[in-house]
Amino acid sequence: MKIIVLGAGLVGSLIARDLSLDFEVTVADKSEEALKRIAELSKVKTIKIDFSKENAIKEAVKDFDLVVGAVPGFLGFNMLKQVIEAKKNIVDISFAPEDCMVLDKLAKENNVTAIIDCGVAPGMSNILVSHASKLLDEAQSCEVLVGGLPQSRYWPYEYKLVFSPLDTIDEYMRPARMKVNGEIVEKPALSEVELVDFPPIGTLEAFNTDGLRSLLYTLNIPNMKEKTLRYPGHAEKMKILRETGFFNSEPVEINGVKVKPIELTAKLLFPMWKLKEGEKDFTVMRVTVEGKKNGEKVSYVYDLIDHFDDMMKVTSMARTTGYTCSVVVRILAKGLYDKKGVCPPEFLGMEDEIFEEILKGLREKGVIYEERIVKS
Amino acid sequence: MKIIVLGAGLVGSLIARDLSLDFEVTVADKSEEALKRIAELSKVKTIKIDFSKENAIKEAVKDFDLVVGAVPGFLGFNMLKQVIEAKKNIVDISFAPEDCMVLDKLAKENNVTAIIDCGVAPGMSNILVSHASKLLDEAQSCEVLVGGLPQSRYWPYEYKLVFSPLDTIDEYMRPARMKVNGEIVEKPALSEVELVDFPPIGTLEAFNTDGLRSLLYTLNIPNMKEKTLRYPGHAEKMKILRETGFFNSEPVEINGVKVKPIELTAKLLFPMWKLKEGEKDFTVMRVTVEGKKNGEKVSYVYDLIDHFDDMMKVTSMARTTGYTCSVVVRILAKGLYDKKGVCPPEFLGMEDEIFEEILKGLREKGVIYEERIVKS
Repeated sequence: MKIIVLGAGLVGSLIARDLSLDFEVTVADKSEEALKRIAELSKVKTIKIDFSKENAIKEAVKDFDLVVGAVPGFLGFNMLKQVIEAKKNIVDISFAPEDCMVLDKLAKENNVTAIIDCGVAPGMSNILVSHASKLLDEAQSCEVLVGGLPQSRYWPYEYKLVFSPLDTIDEYMRPARMKVNGEIVEKPALSEVELVDFPPIGTLEAFNTDGLRSLLYTLNIPNMKEKTLRYPGHAEKMKILRETGFFNSEPVEINGVKVKPIELTAKLLFPMWKLKEGEKDFTVMRVTVEGKKNGEKVSYVYDLIDHFDDMMKVTSMARTTGYTCSVVVRILAKGLYDKKGVCPPEFLGMEDEIFEEILKGLREKGVIYEERIVKS
Repeated sequence: MKIIVLGAGLVGSLIARDLSLDFEVTVADKSEEALKRIAELSKVKTIKIDFSKENAIKEAVKDFDLVVGAVPGFLGFNMLKQVIEAKKNIVDISFAPEDCMVLDKLAKENNVTAIIDCGVAPGMSNILVSHASKLLDEAQSCEVLVGGLPQSRYWPYEYKLVFSPLDTIDEYMRPARMKVNGEIVEKPALSEVELVDFPPIGTLEAFNTDGLRSLLYTLNIPNMKEKTLRYPGHAEKMKILRETGFFNSEPVEINGVKVKPIELTAKLLFPMWKLKEGEKDFTVMRVTVEGKKNGEKVSYVYDLIDHFDDMMKVTSMARTTGYTCSVVVRILAKGLYDKKGVCPPEFLGMEDEIFEEILKGLREKGVIYEERIVKS
């Protein structure tokens, strides 16, 4: 089977390395440097493609059996559309801001399976929520707590970037959509800060962010929320910067020149937030689904604590995102899942065999979700 | 006696209003609006002068008996020089960043008394330190804690500007000079944060700032420090902004345009820091001078808590600064003090009669320094 991975970034490269163990893999990117790096690390072919060029992707994927989408978010929707037009199955972790479900009809017409948002959160979070909700007679609420954090805490932010800097700021700006008593409601990002213990990590803070995406519409759970995890105190600092206007995109005039505050802030903040050579990250996630089963109140709780890979020098964020994607690619390659259309990951979580296959595949990579059943 | 007040800002105006009760007062400023405002409030003459024009001040002061300097700090040194050249006595609250003592020789040659830094701190702080050190057989240490704060505390900064915005930021940037065991040492601004109770205000935080100025050189006290008072948590927030680079003057390039971060920060922060119509400030100061007297360890402690003047609608910062100046003007007018040269306020504090006259004059304005003697 011939697979093309679109995007040779941190996560795309890891996916390509992993899939090259079993498949004939080609990696496409605009950056020759990125392509050179991945070619040195693994047995993959590379092709240089400018993803923003019209129909470049449609053309590039035509000789492959399966596509992995790992392009920057702003290119994600257009990439997905071209892959579907080319009638190729795809597993995507580009996290486009647009609603990709509008491509569902086209995907079905073209007999394409397009699995989107197939990372850790969104991704595994959706899979765990849908699986647990199916185990219950009635799912009443779900909560996703998730964060990627540096092992070493440095004042003042105690944070290092594990994905796109501007997407991180956007998460602190965009109102968080959640479901309360069956209604979709919006709360400010960074609101409702609470402290939660994650042994052996210690105490983290959790605050509202807009991360539920498709789950808000696909699952019938009346109460749903997603919160981001950081070291305690981070949200307050981000709120101060946000409320002072440092994250604004609205230009401010300074001596006759218009400047977007976020662009200055990015220049100052992002170098401080860069994970330096030798620094290590980890990923924490806790998914809780509460409801009734046989008349009893039951919660399914899934805990993940994943660490930087010292052997492969790969961040935990790349591991937890990339391996979810590559495990699902293997499931598609085996023909275990063949539903057509645009499929958010919760569709996979609803099928017991697929769910077990995903957990098993991740366990082999050392990404381990621990399940607890809490009865009260 | 004919007095000219240079500067019709907040403090200059209050000084002019106060002095107009006893003297023939003229106020000079560049702003017609400011002059109109003061002319409506009190029986003063006004003249429009651009202080930055060469020799404009020297010319303007020539028909007056005494000058009050209340110009922006960056004009202060040049203003003082012109007044001394014009052979006029002056009481100054312009707080020039330059070392005004270099004009001492010229002032003596011209038979001029030039009292500089004659506000609350610097100003009364110097007067209290020098007075108390004279009461002791051996002064071992002094500490000045001082801050101007809003009565209402609003998240996140719990601070409102009571003097020049950029000077406030400069106080958070410039290393704090202090004296430790007889040596002048520098510590970072905003460092050594500690909590101090000021009943009935409550708990405030005190941190190092560079405010001792002439005291470092004129008084022989081996340990001296000055700290600024704010509501707890302010220093940490300022440190975060400073260390992220938001207070830097070094330009940063954004899309080919060079921008000074402090200029953007000023645009965003200062509107939030503006004391709004109806908002009230207060001033807190505690001066402690410790030493030995008759073989015993003794501390002299002076406490000031001063409030916004509801009747006159004048900020406490203007009151405590302006009335110190106008009280000293009256002392000069009465001929009680006639030392020639450039005199920092600690020179006044060394003379008992002058000291009592100052405290009495301020008490009449409701600005009350409470003295405590603590023996241990």
